[in-house]
Amino acid sequence: MSIFTKIINREIPAEIIFENDVLIVIRDINPKAKVHLLIIPKKEIYTINDLGQEDTKLIAEMFFTAQKVAKNMGVSEWYKLNFNVWEKWGQEVMHIHMHLLSDI
Amino acid sequence: MSIFTKIINREIPAEIIFENDVLIVIRDINPKAKVHLLIIPKKEIYTINDLGQEDTKLIAEMFFTAQKVAKNMGVSEWYKLNFNVWEKWGQEVMHIHMHLLSDI
Repeated sequence: MSIFTKIINREIPAEIIFENDVLIVIRDINPKAKVHLLIIPKKEIYTINDLGQEDTKLIAEMFFTAQKVAKNMGVSEWYKLNFNVWEKWGQEVMHIHMHLLSDI
Repeated sequence: MSIFTKIINREIPAEIIFENDVLIVIRDINPKAKVHLLIIPKKEIYTINDLGQEDTKLIAEMFFTAQKVAKNMGVSEWYKLNFNVWEKWGQEVMHIHMHLLSDI
């Protein structure tokens, strides 16, 4: 079970910004920008390479959530969305997550 | 018409890595990493904020293409996917594009 699943299950605390049936949005505990959120599918998908056709709606839902959250945080005119695939070099959590960053 | 649409229409040259019905993959002409590709929907969508439900399959297709291209380039164990929304601060091309970067 990934650390993100433990957060989703409320076994580990985190600042939860948004949650729906398929994903959760939390603040990164080690922020690299003024706003640094993680948009995390509840489904444990190891890396971007493991996304399949069955995840089509889920992938899109991450973007629609990013739009809403960026708007709510007042950063919709300046933000970045990043995914990292870094299997051999120590990706910290092997459960896909989208970074939403803004320095506004 | 965006510069990317002109590339898609072969009005401007670019190194085209991959193309299908809905998107094109080109090399960034000003690379920030050893591998720096742009995955660009043929549909002219201004920013991430302008993606709608009707773009669900298109968004997912960008990721499935990233998987394939990363594999073909031999970088599937280390790459990043980035999107920028930067309306007020000079996003260079107002036509959404996913950056695929790797320094392997």
